[in-house]
Amino acid sequence: MASPGKRLATDGLPQRVTICEVGPRDGLQNEPAPVASADKIRFCDMLSDAGVPMLEATSFVSPKHVPQMADAAEVYGAIRKDPGRTYVVLVPNERRMDRALEAGVRAVGVFTAASEAFAQANIRTSVDRSVETFSGVVRRAKDVGMFVRASVSTAFGCPFQGAVDVADVVRVCRQLLAIGVDELSVADTIGVGTPNQVFDVVDALRDVVPLERLNLHFHDTRGTALANILAGLQCGVSRFDASAGGLGGCPFAPGATGNVATEDVVYLLNGMGIETGIDLDELRAATRFMSERLGRQPASRAYAALEASAARSRSASPAR
Amino acid sequence: MASPGKRLATDGLPQRVTICEVGPRDGLQNEPAPVASADKIRFCDMLSDAGVPMLEATSFVSPKHVPQMADAAEVYGAIRKDPGRTYVVLVPNERRMDRALEAGVRAVGVFTAASEAFAQANIRTSVDRSVETFSGVVRRAKDVGMFVRASVSTAFGCPFQGAVDVADVVRVCRQLLAIGVDELSVADTIGVGTPNQVFDVVDALRDVVPLERLNLHFHDTRGTALANILAGLQCGVSRFDASAGGLGGCPFAPGATGNVATEDVVYLLNGMGIETGIDLDELRAATRFMSERLGRQPASRAYAALEASAARSRSASPAR
Repeated sequence: MASPGKRLATDGLPQRVTICEVGPRDGLQNEPAPVASADKIRFCDMLSDAGVPMLEATSFVSPKHVPQMADAAEVYGAIRKDPGRTYVVLVPNERRMDRALEAGVRAVGVFTAASEAFAQANIRTSVDRSVETFSGVVRRAKDVGMFVRASVSTAFGCPFQGAVDVADVVRVCRQLLAIGVDELSVADTIGVGTPNQVFDVVDALRDVVPLERLNLHFHDTRGTALANILAGLQCGVSRFDASAGGLGGCPFAPGATGNVATEDVVYLLNGMGIETGIDLDELRAATRFMSERLGRQPASRAYAALEASAARSRSASPAR
Repeated sequence: MASPGKRLATDGLPQRVTICEVGPRDGLQNEPAPVASADKIRFCDMLSDAGVPMLEATSFVSPKHVPQMADAAEVYGAIRKDPGRTYVVLVPNERRMDRALEAGVRAVGVFTAASEAFAQANIRTSVDRSVETFSGVVRRAKDVGMFVRASVSTAFGCPFQGAVDVADVVRVCRQLLAIGVDELSVADTIGVGTPNQVFDVVDALRDVVPLERLNLHFHDTRGTALANILAGLQCGVSRFDASAGGLGGCPFAPGATGNVATEDVVYLLNGMGIETGIDLDELRAATRFMSERLGRQPASRAYAALEASAARSRSASPAR
C-alpha cells in the first residue's frame, strides 16, 4: 500500500543538497571572543578539506561596527580557494565593494530583512532603501561575473515586530531578484519558525524564484531547525545554510542556540541518502579546531554524539 | 497552485497529539544523581498541572538494579492522579506486578526491544522470552481493566548490532499486540533515526496496529528528533513520548542528549496549530523545578529560549 508517508520518503526529495557553510562569517561574527586571523584561515581551509561546496568566508563591513571582521581582506586573501567551491564575502555597500574587488573576491552576499522593524534596528535603514543600496553593489558584481547571494532576515518572525507577513517576504525577494541576485537565502533569524511556515513561505515563493536559486537558513533556537529543513526538502528546496558546530549563538537570546549545526544537517541528509559532498569526520575536525580556539563546546548534537562515539572507539582499541 | 509541500502542511496531519511525558521515570532513571521522593512527587504534580495527558510516573523494578526507582510505591501513592490523565508505571514481571496492584496502579508499561543484541544486554533475555514474561503481566493487567503500554527499544538502530531490520520491529509489535497490549511505543533508543526510517517503520506497522494505538519515542542525540516527529505526524501518528527538559541523557554517549524535550515538541506542535493540552509556561516551571534539584541546565532548546525571553521581559518591566 502506497501511503502518504512512504510517498514522501521516496518521491520528489532532492537527491543532492548544497550546503552553504556560514560558520566563519555568520558564526564568528556573533562570537564574543576575538579569533586570530590565522585561526580563521585554518578553519576555512579545514572546511574546504571537509568538502563544503559554498563557504561564507568573511565580511567586508565597517571594522568599527564589526571588529570581528576587521581582517576580512587578509583572511580572504589567505584562504585556499578550491576550484568548484564558492567563497562568499558579505558586502554592505559600494564603498566596501571596492575593497572586495581589490581583494579579488568572486562571490558576494548582501543582506536585508523581511521585517521593516528589523531592518531599521539591524541595518539602520528601510527595506526598500537597503535594496536600493545593494542595487549598485549587485550591478558591479554582475558586471565582473560574480555570484551574488542575498539574505533575507526575519522571514519567519521578527524580534521586534513579532509575526512577519509572507507577502512581505515575497515582496523583498521580488525586489532582490529584480536587481539581479543569483540566489536568495531566506532566513529564520531568531529560530521561531515551524514546518507549516516553511510550507507557506516556499509555496509563496515558488512562482517568484526557481527553487534551485532558493536557499533556506534556519536557527535551532527552539530545536525546530531540522524539522524545518525536512519541510524545505519536501517542498523541493535543495540549498540550506548551516554553521559548523552551530557557531554563532543567538544574538537575541544569550545562551541560546543560533545557526543550525552543519553536523546535524549532514547527519540528517546522510541518513536520508541525500548527497552533500561533505565528509562528516573532516567537518568534525574543523569544528573541534575552532571550538578549542573558542574554549567552549559546540552547540551541535550530532557533533557531541560523534565525539562520544569516537572516544569510545579509542578507549576500546588502545593499540590503534 | 496546490504543491506537494502545501498539501502536506494542511491535509491529513493529526489535529491533536497525545504526549506521554516520560521525564519522571525514563528521565530520572538515567540521572546519575539521586532525587528525593518528595521532589519526584512535586515534579509529577507540576506536570499534571501543566496538562500532560499521560505520565510515565515511576518503575516497579528491582531496587538493587535500579536504585533510582526504589521509592516507586511511595511516589505512585503520593502523586496526584487527575481524572482523565493516565499515570503509567513500568512493571518488568509478575512479581513486580503484585506490588503495582497493591499500590493501586491503573496503567502499566512493559518493555522489550526490536534488537536481539539489545534485549540480551539490557534486559538479559531474548526478545521472545521477554514477551512470554510480559504475557502474564499483561493478562493480569487486562483482567483488572488496566491500560497497558509496551515499549519497543532500538527500533531504529542498536548500539550493539547496528542496523535493525524493520521486519524485526514488526515481528515484536505483532507479538506484543497478540498478548493484549493497548499501545505500542516504538523507540529510537540511541537517537540514530532519520525521517526516511520513520516513514519505513510506520508504513510497515500500518497494517499491524491502528495508528491511534501507535506511539513513537525519539531521542535527540543527533538533533533529528523533531524532524522524525514531523515525519511521524505526516504518516498519521498522533502519539509521541517526550521528556520535560530532555531529562535522561543518553546512556550510550555520556554528555550527549537523550529523550527529546517536551518543551521542544510542544513548541513545534503549537507552531503547527496541533493541540496537546499542555501549557508551555507551566511545563517550563516543572522543568525549572527539577533542573534546579539536579543542579544542571535542561537539554531543551525551546526551554533555553523561553527562559531567555522571560528574563528579558522581567528586566524590561521591573515594576511587574
